[in-house]
Amino acid sequence: MAHALALGRRGLGQVWPNPAVGCVIVSQGRIVGRGSTQPGGRPHAEAVALEQAGPRARGATAYVSLEPCAHHGRTPPCADALVASGIARVVTSMEDPDPRVAGRGHRILRDAGIEVTTGICAAEARRDQAGFLQRIMQGRPMLTLKLATSFDGRIATASGESRWITGPDARRAVHAMRARHDGILVGGGTARADDPELTVRGLGPVCQPVRLIASRKLDLPEAGRLASSARQGKLWLCHGPEATERRRAHWREAGARLIEIPVRHGQLDLTALLAVLGAEGLTRIFCEGGGTFAASLLQADLVDRLAGFTAGLALGAEGRPGLGALGIDRLVAAPRFELDETRAVGGDVLHVWRRVPTA
Amino acid sequence: MAHALALGRRGLGQVWPNPAVGCVIVSQGRIVGRGSTQPGGRPHAEAVALEQAGPRARGATAYVSLEPCAHHGRTPPCADALVASGIARVVTSMEDPDPRVAGRGHRILRDAGIEVTTGICAAEARRDQAGFLQRIMQGRPMLTLKLATSFDGRIATASGESRWITGPDARRAVHAMRARHDGILVGGGTARADDPELTVRGLGPVCQPVRLIASRKLDLPEAGRLASSARQGKLWLCHGPEATERRRAHWREAGARLIEIPVRHGQLDLTALLAVLGAEGLTRIFCEGGGTFAASLLQADLVDRLAGFTAGLALGAEGRPGLGALGIDRLVAAPRFELDETRAVGGDVLHVWRRVPTA
Repeated sequence: MAHALALGRRGLGQVWPNPAVGCVIVSQGRIVGRGSTQPGGRPHAEAVALEQAGPRARGATAYVSLEPCAHHGRTPPCADALVASGIARVVTSMEDPDPRVAGRGHRILRDAGIEVTTGICAAEARRDQAGFLQRIMQGRPMLTLKLATSFDGRIATASGESRWITGPDARRAVHAMRARHDGILVGGGTARADDPELTVRGLGPVCQPVRLIASRKLDLPEAGRLASSARQGKLWLCHGPEATERRRAHWREAGARLIEIPVRHGQLDLTALLAVLGAEGLTRIFCEGGGTFAASLLQADLVDRLAGFTAGLALGAEGRPGLGALGIDRLVAAPRFELDETRAVGGDVLHVWRRVPTA
Repeated sequence: MAHALALGRRGLGQVWPNPAVGCVIVSQGRIVGRGSTQPGGRPHAEAVALEQAGPRARGATAYVSLEPCAHHGRTPPCADALVASGIARVVTSMEDPDPRVAGRGHRILRDAGIEVTTGICAAEARRDQAGFLQRIMQGRPMLTLKLATSFDGRIATASGESRWITGPDARRAVHAMRARHDGILVGGGTARADDPELTVRGLGPVCQPVRLIASRKLDLPEAGRLASSARQGKLWLCHGPEATERRRAHWREAGARLIEIPVRHGQLDLTALLAVLGAEGLTRIFCEGGGTFAASLLQADLVDRLAGFTAGLALGAEGRPGLGALGIDRLVAAPRFELDETRAVGGDVLHVWRRVPTA
């Protein structure tokens, strides 16, 4: 199952709207097939592993990191395929809460006389599937907020210089993180200031994440890198009702997709934004700032994970803060996160945190 | 030698103005004596180990984490004691650069026919002795700046609430760090705002570090914890020439020691302050803020190590910054530090950095 989970993780960021699943088929103590959900979401892990196993699947055990699907989507149900293969036993880590599955996959298998064991490595599976589960259960993707700061929490000097605070290894790690997410989200301020590419670079061929910009007025640089690359990979611009028709037309023609989001208290309604992204099938969003936008996400309690890179330099109080104002006066009101992992990455420190549910 | 170094480290913060040394005596493959510099700086490690070994020292090998002393101080020279014991071989990690030793310890041993090997685990020894070496070579103690912040680098909310950002394990680790330093230094602002005790608590009996307050005008709370505890452990107040005679008299009577420091550009001359502390014999200083004072130390390039604790909560831009203004506009001008160590401490992240010498 650990192997199946590892295979499944390969698909993170590459398979939305589907879950990233891994499957290992074992016959007489030997692995005869292995598979993971393929880029784009199909074929599913089970189909890949069954194809590899061929007739050796008969009487074998299949370890699947999530309950096999039971519904006819773009591919036939994996539960049926497992039955047809003559598999004798299926071990899964957890039920798939997708209402189209929700125990039906396991039932198809059991009804066909296959021995089914579930709940193996369930905690790890739930962690890997956190984005998918959140989309299914809450209708919104999991959101990770990344912050790369100086020792004293600054993301740039007063003049705006930020290249580079962290070292090359940390920057490479950020590209690897991007590749494991379905979408990269930044606020309009960052898009204006940095005109970023928001692509995964230096990691060989990968499914590029959707580039997502939240800009109420759609006042983005119309002649920069984003505009010129709008057709190379998905670019979704999330704007408010007040975006002018001229701007909308410009970006539509450039190749971007426009998504109108309602405005609340003079700002884009970020809860609505995340709901739209969830409805579009995105399961894992990686937000890279800026500070004001990140603060708005925290205030709306939409940040599920924090990923911090801390560098060994001091910039002082005039440096730009990594997070904008949160309106917090008492410590008890501050959003709290639990430490998931910390380690050195090159000469910098990576620390990853998970949102603590409020009581 | 690794064992001798570990024994030596026990004395850090406890033995100033002496170096914290460890000594292991091995006879026929068995340890027959071990010692470390005792609290207050004497007896020295070699004397403790030789006493334990007794006649078994004859023909044995002594591993010492620093060159044995050659001068009559408050104790007779350890080099002479080693010769008298009949030790056959002495292994040391490095020469003691103290001008009263500086190779003379090794020479006494060699002249007596003892085989001497030096330079074993030298890098580790230099790291352990960094404070002592810096005092001997540059005349000032090593200074570690501690900062305990939120994920976004804040040390308190806008209203000043800071208890507690980090968890109990991190706070306990801070007490352990204090115990390994000769002095704890804070600026006058922190002394006024927090009226801190600046003592090591919860770790059993230890030599309490000297409490050091840098307050130009000596405008400190005259009826608080500091004042009432001035006779319980050393309290040194470093002030400018403008401190009024009334205030000086008050603190002198309370039991504090007053140290007048020159003023430069309207601020205490921190380079002069560190030189005074070095001349007093302090080798390791632990600075715990506040942000403005810490920024002044960084600007004067007096910070040798950074110790950061990062907690998993977000306070936002209104929160108090851990460092005051540094006047840095370009990244290239920011003081840089190299990562020494990072690990989880309870639910927080500890990261320790070492100053990169400027080119």
